[in-house]
Amino acid sequence: MNSTAADPLPSWNDGRAKEAVLAFVARVTNEGSSDFLPPAERIAVLDNDGTLWPEQPIPFQAAFAIDEVKRRVVAEPTLASDPMVQAALAGDLGTLLAGEHHDGVMQILALTHAGMTTDEFRAAVEAWLASARHPRYGRRYDELTYQPMQELLRLLRASGFKNFIVSGGGADFMRVWVERVYGIPPEQVVGSTSRTTFELRDSGPVLTKTLNHLFVNDRQGKPVGIHQFIGRRPVLCCGNSDGDHAMLQYTTINNPRPSFGLIVHHTDGEREYAYDAVSKSTGKLVEALQEAPERGWLVVDMKRDWNTIFRPE
Amino acid sequence: MNSTAADPLPSWNDGRAKEAVLAFVARVTNEGSSDFLPPAERIAVLDNDGTLWPEQPIPFQAAFAIDEVKRRVVAEPTLASDPMVQAALAGDLGTLLAGEHHDGVMQILALTHAGMTTDEFRAAVEAWLASARHPRYGRRYDELTYQPMQELLRLLRASGFKNFIVSGGGADFMRVWVERVYGIPPEQVVGSTSRTTFELRDSGPVLTKTLNHLFVNDRQGKPVGIHQFIGRRPVLCCGNSDGDHAMLQYTTINNPRPSFGLIVHHTDGEREYAYDAVSKSTGKLVEALQEAPERGWLVVDMKRDWNTIFRPE
Repeated sequence: MNSTAADPLPSWNDGRAKEAVLAFVARVTNEGSSDFLPPAERIAVLDNDGTLWPEQPIPFQAAFAIDEVKRRVVAEPTLASDPMVQAALAGDLGTLLAGEHHDGVMQILALTHAGMTTDEFRAAVEAWLASARHPRYGRRYDELTYQPMQELLRLLRASGFKNFIVSGGGADFMRVWVERVYGIPPEQVVGSTSRTTFELRDSGPVLTKTLNHLFVNDRQGKPVGIHQFIGRRPVLCCGNSDGDHAMLQYTTINNPRPSFGLIVHHTDGEREYAYDAVSKSTGKLVEALQEAPERGWLVVDMKRDWNTIFRPE
Repeated sequence: MNSTAADPLPSWNDGRAKEAVLAFVARVTNEGSSDFLPPAERIAVLDNDGTLWPEQPIPFQAAFAIDEVKRRVVAEPTLASDPMVQAALAGDLGTLLAGEHHDGVMQILALTHAGMTTDEFRAAVEAWLASARHPRYGRRYDELTYQPMQELLRLLRASGFKNFIVSGGGADFMRVWVERVYGIPPEQVVGSTSRTTFELRDSGPVLTKTLNHLFVNDRQGKPVGIHQFIGRRPVLCCGNSDGDHAMLQYTTINNPRPSFGLIVHHTDGEREYAYDAVSKSTGKLVEALQEAPERGWLVVDMKRDWNTIFRPE
C-alpha cells in the first residue's frame, strides 16, 4: 500500500473509501479469513452509466440513437416529418419520455434498435463509436471510462472475482465494446434485452432484432436480471443511482456471504458532473444515498476520493 | 492417444467419432494452427436432456413436476379433482400436451414452478433429487449423466473452452445442481426462463417465480437464447434432437471461425434407450440427422462409440 508499485488503486486517494475497498477484497480472498469466499462465489455486479463511464449530458446510448436517427433521415427524408423524430433530432428528451409508456422513446428505439440483424446493429455501433465525440471532452465515448473504476475492475479480476455489468443499457449495445474497453466478455453483460428472431438465409443463420418481450434491466429489474442471467446472488455491487438501489439491497441485505455495496457519488462539477437528487440526464440518486449509512454501503465522493477521473489519453 | 494415462476420452471407443472430437480440439488450441482460436472465442454449447443425461422414460424435470404434484395433493386434497392434476398423477403426458398452447403443461408448471420464492424452489429441487430414483436404473437422477460427455466437458474445459448448457429445461431447475454435477457454474446455463418479481421483505430480499414472459429455449429459441445470454456465436455445439437443429445451424453454417457440430444418436436400447424418429418422450430426431452429412456434423452412435454410458456409481 505504501509502495506505489504495489498499489492496485493508484487513482484513488488514500482515505476511508480506498481502505474499505481494499479491506473487503483482502477479507474474502485471504484463505485464513473466516470470511474467505471460494472463487466461484466472488460475483461482482457493476452498473455502467454513471458508474463505469458518464451519463451526462445524456446517456451515451441515447446519443447513439439520436445520431442514428440523423443518419437515417438523410436516406429517408420522409422520416423528418414525424414529431418524435423531430424531438430526437432536437435532443428533446422531455418530449420523447412523455406519457406512461414513453411512446417517443419506444418509437426511436424501434427505428434504431430493431428491424436489423444483430450483425448490422453491431456494425452500426462500431461505426458510431469510431466517429462520434463527446460534446464536452471531445473524445471517443468509449475512451471516457473512469480510471479508478478500471483499476477496481482489474483488482477484482486479479483477485478471482467474475465481473458482470448490470446496466439499464441495451445488452446488444454494450457487448460490442465491453470486452475491449473493460476486459469483460459479452457473456458477463446483463442489460436490457428484447427477443430476436432466427432465420436461416442463403447467406447463413441470421438473428433479427425486435422490441418484443422488452426487458428493462433497471431498478427492481436489476435483481430480476441478475437472477435470470447469473443465477446467484452477487457479493459486491457498484452503482450510482436509485436505479441501482434494488441490486444494492439484493447484494447486501441478509446475504449469508460477506458482501459489499458501493455508490459512486457525482460531486465533481469541475472535472466531471455534480448531481444527485436532480439530474438533467439519468442518474437521480436519493433513496439509495439515504439508505447507505444504515446498510453500510460505501459512498465514494468523486471529488475527494479520486485523483484521476478518466483513463489517460 | 495410445497411452491410457494420456487419453482424455477413455469411455469413447477408438474410431472416427473420438478421432474427430480430438482433432477439432487440437486444431483450435494449437497455436501453430491456422485455425487457432483465442480462449475467449472457445464457446461450447451443449444441450442437456438426451445429450448430457437421459430424457427417458420422461424428461427428468417432468418427473420432478409430477412428484411435486403428488406431494402437493397430500397437503391440498381438493387439487386431486382437477383433470390436469389427475393426468399428471397418471403420468399421462398426452393429455397434458394436448391443445395448441399445452394448457395442461402450463397448469402443472404454474403449480410446481411458480408462486414460490427462488429459494423455496431450489430447496424443492434439492429435496427431490435426494429422494427420487430413476424407474429403470434405481439411481438418483443427477447420478445418471453420460460418462463420455462428462469426459468431453472436462477435455473442453482443460482446453480453455467455456462450456454452456443450452437446454429447453428450466434454468432455475438446472442451476441447482449443474455446478456440482457438470462443473458448470449457474451463469453458464441458458434455459427456459420466466420473470421473477423482486420484493424486500423483513427477512431480506426475495424473488418470487412467475410464468410471465415465459421463454422456451428450444428449437429456434436456442440461437435466440444463445444470443441473449451469451452474446456471441459458439464454435462447438452438441445436441441430440431436432430441438437442437437450429443451434447446430447457428454454430456451424458460415461461421467465420472453425466450428464443430455433434449429434448424440440414441442407438443403444440395451444399455440406454434406442430412439430417433419416434420417441415416447422428447428427443425426436429426423431433420438434424438428415442434414448432418451435408453440414459435416458428427453423429455419435452410442452403441458403437461409447464403451461406458453412465458415470460409475
